[in-house]
Amino acid sequence: MDCLFKKIGLVARHSKPNIVDSLRELADHLESRGVTALIDRDSATQEEAGQHTLIDRADLGKVADLVIVLGGDGTMLSIARLLAPYRVPLVGINQGRLGFMTDIPLHEMLTAIDAILIGEFVPEERILLSASVMREEAEVASALALNDVVFSRGGMGSMIEFEIFIDNQFVYTQRSDGLIVSTPTGSTAYALASGGPILHPTLPAITLVPICPQSMSNRPIAVNDSCVVEFMLTRGLDTRVHFDGQSHCDLMEMDRVIIRRHRNPLRLLHPLGYNYYDMLRQKLHWGERLF
Amino acid sequence: MDCLFKKIGLVARHSKPNIVDSLRELADHLESRGVTALIDRDSATQEEAGQHTLIDRADLGKVADLVIVLGGDGTMLSIARLLAPYRVPLVGINQGRLGFMTDIPLHEMLTAIDAILIGEFVPEERILLSASVMREEAEVASALALNDVVFSRGGMGSMIEFEIFIDNQFVYTQRSDGLIVSTPTGSTAYALASGGPILHPTLPAITLVPICPQSMSNRPIAVNDSCVVEFMLTRGLDTRVHFDGQSHCDLMEMDRVIIRRHRNPLRLLHPLGYNYYDMLRQKLHWGERLF
Amino acid sequence: MDCLFKKIGLVARHSKPNIVDSLRELADHLESRGVTALIDRDSATQEEAGQHTLIDRADLGKVADLVIVLGGDGTMLSIARLLAPYRVPLVGINQGRLGFMTDIPLHEMLTAIDAILIGEFVPEERILLSASVMREEAEVASALALNDVVFSRGGMGSMIEFEIFIDNQFVYTQRSDGLIVSTPTGSTAYALASGGPILHPTLPAITLVPICPQSMSNRPIAVNDSCVVEFMLTRGLDTRVHFDGQSHCDLMEMDRVIIRRHRNPLRLLHPLGYNYYDMLRQKLHWGERLF
Amino acid sequence: MDCLFKKIGLVARHSKPNIVDSLRELADHLESRGVTALIDRDSATQEEAGQHTLIDRADLGKVADLVIVLGGDGTMLSIARLLAPYRVPLVGINQGRLGFMTDIPLHEMLTAIDAILIGEFVPEERILLSASVMREEAEVASALALNDVVFSRGGMGSMIEFEIFIDNQFVYTQRSDGLIVSTPTGSTAYALASGGPILHPTLPAITLVPICPQSMSNRPIAVNDSCVVEFMLTRGLDTRVHFDGQSHCDLMEMDRVIIRRHRNPLRLLHPLGYNYYDMLRQKLHWGERLF
Repeated sequence: MDCLFKKIGLVARHSKPNIVDSLRELADHLESRGVTALIDRDSATQEEAGQHTLIDRADLGKVADLVIVLGGDGTMLSIARLLAPYRVPLVGINQGRLGFMTDIPLHEMLTAIDAILIGEFVPEERILLSASVMREEAEVASALALNDVVFSRGGMGSMIEFEIFIDNQFVYTQRSDGLIVSTPTGSTAYALASGGPILHPTLPAITLVPICPQSMSNRPIAVNDSCVVEFMLTRGLDTRVHFDGQSHCDLMEMDRVIIRRHRNPLRLLHPLGYNYYDMLRQKLHWGERLF
Repeated sequence: MDCLFKKIGLVARHSKPNIVDSLRELADHLESRGVTALIDRDSATQEEAGQHTLIDRADLGKVADLVIVLGGDGTMLSIARLLAPYRVPLVGINQGRLGFMTDIPLHEMLTAIDAILIGEFVPEERILLSASVMREEAEVASALALNDVVFSRGGMGSMIEFEIFIDNQFVYTQRSDGLIVSTPTGSTAYALASGGPILHPTLPAITLVPICPQSMSNRPIAVNDSCVVEFMLTRGLDTRVHFDGQSHCDLMEMDRVIIRRHRNPLRLLHPLGYNYYDMLRQKLHWGERLF
Repeated sequence: MDCLFKKIGLVARHSKPNIVDSLRELADHLESRGVTALIDRDSATQEEAGQHTLIDRADLGKVADLVIVLGGDGTMLSIARLLAPYRVPLVGINQGRLGFMTDIPLHEMLTAIDAILIGEFVPEERILLSASVMREEAEVASALALNDVVFSRGGMGSMIEFEIFIDNQFVYTQRSDGLIVSTPTGSTAYALASGGPILHPTLPAITLVPICPQSMSNRPIAVNDSCVVEFMLTRGLDTRVHFDGQSHCDLMEMDRVIIRRHRNPLRLLHPLGYNYYDMLRQKLHWGERLF
Repeated sequence: MDCLFKKIGLVARHSKPNIVDSLRELADHLESRGVTALIDRDSATQEEAGQHTLIDRADLGKVADLVIVLGGDGTMLSIARLLAPYRVPLVGINQGRLGFMTDIPLHEMLTAIDAILIGEFVPEERILLSASVMREEAEVASALALNDVVFSRGGMGSMIEFEIFIDNQFVYTQRSDGLIVSTPTGSTAYALASGGPILHPTLPAITLVPICPQSMSNRPIAVNDSCVVEFMLTRGLDTRVHFDGQSHCDLMEMDRVIIRRHRNPLRLLHPLGYNYYDMLRQKLHWGERLF
């Protein structure tokens, strides 16, 4: 068998014993197929990894030509943000509960990976957002996000106030608990809980979803993903900006955050037969009758 | 002055006396600029039109190279559906109340039109939807829509049931009062009242907005406007499909309606300085404080 | 055993063979307990009823001192509207799918009924609405509703316009697809699909839930159930008022509909251990995790 | 003139110069009517108060038999929480922008107060909530709220998890940004921004409005105000409970907060002709047409 991928990185959520077993089973299987398996050092100890090579998570993008994640959407998010600059594709394996991105069940892992190794997969590109936090003229922080860039009040309990500009055009002043700037991928996460629409992954869109806005006419709005979205905090002493809920930066009044589509998309590989709507229908219990 | 447009069609909402005065004032003005003004026969009588030429509404697209509408968004909708096949651009003049598409106030009409005649305008393209109603293998009706194609129960008061396919992939079975399939233009009309997101006109998207769905997880979803959306009625004896709320077709169970983006977009001309967000902010009272 | 109820009416949804079997099994069981079972003539033929007495549905209220319904919430609604004037309590048995009101599963029917016969039950009162349709000074129709009185546009597809008065105080003019005036019982039915809140059955409230209102600030409002709600249709040629989705009346412009709490509440008997929140949690899938 | 009230407390928002002028004008006017005016020491200095008596805010409830507030709804909230134990009625005067509770405009202040002094007013009672924070078996904090008791995540950005019990019956486990437990008064404040219904002030209800719940079926629910609502935090390290957005208490996991209707309602006095719906209509711009 001639594999498309020579070096495959393996990442697991936390280092739970049973996941590590699956990780090693997968590594053994890959080696038997002539593929070099590289196990993420944060996912397993050398003892757990056995004879397999460990690799620093930060090096995965440089070395691997495919990364397989065993875990949930949270693990996918953190790996995606790390790999985005390197264009390395990702495959997600869930441990029982179907994820929005981890669509291969553990018990089908080996068969599904074999198919992917010989090119039988459905590739899908997802945009990421790139955010810069500007204080006066300096960039004080920057981050990538696959789901969302979330502006949010803290524990003081007061609404914050901010202005939004899109492509340098003033959009609105808003008073609310915050704002979610979401990719299509993020549209089924926090943005959905806050009343946003579902966006198909291939739609070149960014949505702005207000969190508990004071004005009832401040509805979610979707714009082209080529737009530059600028957030300027005008009031709110405990405001933070969160990236995928995994890292954050404290904001000061008059800070601006510039958000644009990241130059590299994330590449997900799905098993043949993958269908976004099938996944949505299962996750959202579409079709069930209520009364 | 060298005008970009030689023959300009003029349409007014109904034939109210005061609108007809504005219509003739505009026609006089155009003729003084060396432009031929063609007045829509449904908008004025020959007596009202004076020495100006009347034209059948159905011929506007063939003859005029620009059409100016005096009226509201409703008049714009019906003219847009008529002109779409001919790629004739449209300008909208409102009579006091700013419209989502009629953005020139009556009292600035002459100045604004002069600017447009010499090429000082902001062009904007809007997609239309093209819908075919299929009964068994035959197309029994077809129509265009600039705002929306709406599937809706009638007076019997029972929810209807239907299936949705996008690009031949099954999306869901839904039980609801109906479904709005909307363009970005329509996203600020009925779809907004039914809980849909606002879509910027340049976003290449179609949204599906359920009307009072029985399942709370049936949320609005936006897909690429290159998608083909198929609606199949499975239950609902008094179901109709409406096009821009201006024409409709009764549906029978098992009828299918195929919706795709129309090949020609509508071209709107706005005055220089036009800004979509300014218009939204004014129409939706964004920025007002509540408590 | 000394039964609290001497004559028990039995009603089943439609006359499906297997329901009729359960109906007769229940009738046999009641007779063995010394209770007279009266089978609704619309639910079974004399042949199906065997030696048991048939009774006209319209006479149930006068004769029976308890009525047991085998079916779904729809059957409960129609029987409740019929029995309301007579204060006869109701028990609901579902055929597999838990109902908001039919909370005894078929396979526990005999045990549950035995307990109820000896007074082991949780009684619960539900209000009904009484509606009068007034044309000029005359009442042209009237009806009861356990769930809701729904004002709704028909197939023409245009929004309707109406005014609402509560206790003779003007509330608002609204332009929408309609309005749901709901009891707490109805708050988990159509009103929920239209964005209304859930009201506990013991809350003395009536809610007004707009259906796709044009103005985003027209939110659901709950008022005391001692209030008199008046709806006046100002525009809408194909408007109807529906009562529990089971009967309706066409409205003309300027018709008024006066809605007040019916003088008699409906009395539901639940098995011991009944808990409204348990039922809600099961019906609405509360507690499930999404992402 | 024989006044109903002998000693009237006067409170103003902050100590802005122009409000202080109105405060003294009102005090002078009251004294000219033979009423003792007592100016809140936090609202004016002795110099600003001139010959009028200053009083500690904490003593207002014991001494005054009416309190007049010049300011916005925020000032009303803080005074209401202070006065609730004393059953002293409140009158609200706004400085230009109509408040949900401050319904007398500044320029009608003297006439309106004169009418109230001779008994020409519409009294209205509003419930308050009384909350106890329990850690193991000890009450670690307690507070009153006229609007709402809000459970809310802090700056860490993760959803919190909690359980709700009503009258000791388990309602649900929820994962969300928080929960608003609101009075009818609070139903037009934060609860409205979070998707809650409007409750008429006379409805004996408490609403539970989830903030961005993960499950779309976690809808607002209204229960009788005689219910005891218990919140138990199961997960969320930076969770706080806020009382009217004016005071708060940090929560630890497994803390419980018990919420019940306070024994004393707040008594508001409105000018004759007051109508709750008129106020709502004005505040929420009901009746405006959008498209």
